[in-house]
Amino acid sequence: MTRFGPFLKASDTGQLEFDGVVVTDLADRFGTPCFVLSENTIRANFRRIRDAFQNVYPAEVIVCAGMKGNWGLAARRVMVEEGGGGDAFGLGELTVAMLAGSDPRKIVMNGANKSRETIEAAIDMGVLNQVDNIDELRLVGEVAADLGRTARISLRIRLPLSKLAEVNYVDARYPEGISPSYWKRTFKFGLEPETYVKAVEIAKTMPGVSLEGMHYHGGIPRRAGFYREETEDMVEQIAMIKEKTGWSPEYLNVGGGFVTERYGADMPPPMEDYAHGICDAIVATCKKHGMPVPVLMLEPGRYCWESAGIWITRVDARKEDHTLANKTWVYVDGNTNEMRDPFDPRCSVHHVVVANDVNRKGAEVVDVCGQTCNAGDILAKHRELPPLRIGDTLAFLDMGAYNESFANQSNVIPRSATVMVSNGRASVVRRRETVADVLSRESVPTWLMARPIARAAE
Amino acid sequence: MTRFGPFLKASDTGQLEFDGVVVTDLADRFGTPCFVLSENTIRANFRRIRDAFQNVYPAEVIVCAGMKGNWGLAARRVMVEEGGGGDAFGLGELTVAMLAGSDPRKIVMNGANKSRETIEAAIDMGVLNQVDNIDELRLVGEVAADLGRTARISLRIRLPLSKLAEVNYVDARYPEGISPSYWKRTFKFGLEPETYVKAVEIAKTMPGVSLEGMHYHGGIPRRAGFYREETEDMVEQIAMIKEKTGWSPEYLNVGGGFVTERYGADMPPPMEDYAHGICDAIVATCKKHGMPVPVLMLEPGRYCWESAGIWITRVDARKEDHTLANKTWVYVDGNTNEMRDPFDPRCSVHHVVVANDVNRKGAEVVDVCGQTCNAGDILAKHRELPPLRIGDTLAFLDMGAYNESFANQSNVIPRSATVMVSNGRASVVRRRETVADVLSRESVPTWLMARPIARAAE
Repeated sequence: MTRFGPFLKASDTGQLEFDGVVVTDLADRFGTPCFVLSENTIRANFRRIRDAFQNVYPAEVIVCAGMKGNWGLAARRVMVEEGGGGDAFGLGELTVAMLAGSDPRKIVMNGANKSRETIEAAIDMGVLNQVDNIDELRLVGEVAADLGRTARISLRIRLPLSKLAEVNYVDARYPEGISPSYWKRTFKFGLEPETYVKAVEIAKTMPGVSLEGMHYHGGIPRRAGFYREETEDMVEQIAMIKEKTGWSPEYLNVGGGFVTERYGADMPPPMEDYAHGICDAIVATCKKHGMPVPVLMLEPGRYCWESAGIWITRVDARKEDHTLANKTWVYVDGNTNEMRDPFDPRCSVHHVVVANDVNRKGAEVVDVCGQTCNAGDILAKHRELPPLRIGDTLAFLDMGAYNESFANQSNVIPRSATVMVSNGRASVVRRRETVADVLSRESVPTWLMARPIARAAE
Repeated sequence: MTRFGPFLKASDTGQLEFDGVVVTDLADRFGTPCFVLSENTIRANFRRIRDAFQNVYPAEVIVCAGMKGNWGLAARRVMVEEGGGGDAFGLGELTVAMLAGSDPRKIVMNGANKSRETIEAAIDMGVLNQVDNIDELRLVGEVAADLGRTARISLRIRLPLSKLAEVNYVDARYPEGISPSYWKRTFKFGLEPETYVKAVEIAKTMPGVSLEGMHYHGGIPRRAGFYREETEDMVEQIAMIKEKTGWSPEYLNVGGGFVTERYGADMPPPMEDYAHGICDAIVATCKKHGMPVPVLMLEPGRYCWESAGIWITRVDARKEDHTLANKTWVYVDGNTNEMRDPFDPRCSVHHVVVANDVNRKGAEVVDVCGQTCNAGDILAKHRELPPLRIGDTLAFLDMGAYNESFANQSNVIPRSATVMVSNGRASVVRRRETVADVLSRESVPTWLMARPIARAAE
């Protein structure tokens, strides 16, 4: 759980403040439900990662903050000001990255099935195109030739991770456990080493292609704590590829997957431990094989955004049942359409704070429910909270990653506004949706519009 | 799985046809991915339900097709033509229902935490407001008085279902099983019997309130096969309430939850069995207590929409790995952002048809993957399918319920168009989304726009 800290704290009068702004003032001014993003928390999270790695790595480190976790234009603008890069997936995320003024050298373009239009955009913009397979490599070459440009590329690899074959990793998403080695081998992304070597040979012969990087994304193995082992395996593969082809990457992108406190672990490794483990393994293995140390790229997503966002809702109603179920339900004006972070094994256990009365005494066990038709629309289930009253403003913490980007509109419910706060100021960065927005793509066939409304003949 | 039938079939040349339209022609004309809704299948599904119940029930039956499964304006218009009603949840769904020309008498307004604005709308429109709790009942009375109108209401009940307390129901959503009785008791919706009696007494004294109905939604118990038992329990509660208050409902709404073949059961009861079980239990229990048989309302969702919708995508790429994972991945231009039916325990096992070559011979085992960054973005996992080629059009069957209504925009990926087909004609009823649509609510605080883009001072 996020602890209160420099940007999230209780005022002397017991009000929750985020980046210098009283949260209930935001509720009054912009309405609820509402996401609130702290500019200074984004900056602090970014700097923590960058410094952790740059302090122990002998070459340049580029932090490409994952856009899938939060693709907001304003959030991206903050990242650009910090000198950060971005991991863009598809034309939409690439569009946001470039509209916000990103340095193309710090943007990587991911995807296992990129459209020609997307590849054209990546070449136009000069970003590093992370190629998934040989067919795509050929397509990139073709598009580059058509455009008369050079495509900067990186090749994505899948690793054998043979040392982890016998490991059984258990977390809440995989009740029966999973082998990190099996997972990475059967992952839909990237090339196995044998084909990778072929891809390098092909790329070297393509005139419109500049092969600059290797990409490997650590998901499960990193979360399971094997970041040293997987990094060694990766650099060993680089050495093997270099031996066979003479090529080694100028940019080495090790992806993301750095665990936060909320994300399935009470005591995740501090970012500095990840940095030590990964950087030491790269430097040592490069030295062992006499290879230059590459520029290091990282794709942390959750770590950048999660603690930078809270989500506020108002308590509208209470219902108590003392005879049949012996339960209390507290209804708020938000719902789980906006709380479906699909990667979070602890979904719906966000820490809840009474923003208008942080220090309220007492406790009761309640279900905090949303307003959709779904029985599972419970924002905090069987949770001990201070007694909640109609009109209270509840803040759900650590909501800055994946919740907005995966939000849906079930029951035709418009989505929240998002407000950025910074040193006591506040500005809407995503306007509140309306029912008209949700319905803006609807139409009716002319043959149906022409008929009178009456029960059809049977 | 949906079998081919009168509206979904293979042409003589091996092309998939839906409601008289060749599916690959739709792909060419409207692009992919694309949802396709068959007008005649919606009509057939609706008539199957209505007839099943009306044929065995001695009073009027009103089928209020659940909008949460599919809230499309065109789908709703078809339902209106059929004389069907709607289960609307919140102002957005109510808006669609009334824009499509619904008969207000056939629309029910659900919700556990309705805003004042929503209650006003329900009163304005004359629909049956299904009230969740006593506070809401008081609010409805207040709003009706303010508007100088009468509010038509129904009260939602939770049932003890004591006979089912020892039953353990297992389906894919609840790996360890669940007690249908416990589930219904602790459900966030409705009033337990003791409070229900109080609510009736209060409603009778309110001048602006016309108490007309009782609402009970069978979810788990009905899916578990206990529709007779739960119906008897419900009518016994009506008798108890009548004895204590003198009131009994003119409209009895038994909700939805009718299992389809795809939905977690190989051999679900035919709709006619549900109809017999439920209608017999109502009639017999009313007779036993000397009560008049009420108008019967139903809220089937999945049953109306699921088989009426398919979703088509194109194969863009293949990748084979014969050394490390020994797998084949087939990439299409759709993704699981639009295949997240959250109520379907068999999510991602939709039947897949090669629309351009329905009878193709041969078989291979593949993962059909989407284009998002998520490892879990697999539309058909480890599935035996005919050998798939780049350019094939794949049709995923039974996609008409919950997939569009819960679709999200992760990775800033625009959502599909929807086309309605009918007797050989086709019309766009939901236009394809654009990146500009997805980004249409974004902004950047002025204080950030004013600064030059440069790394912040450290």
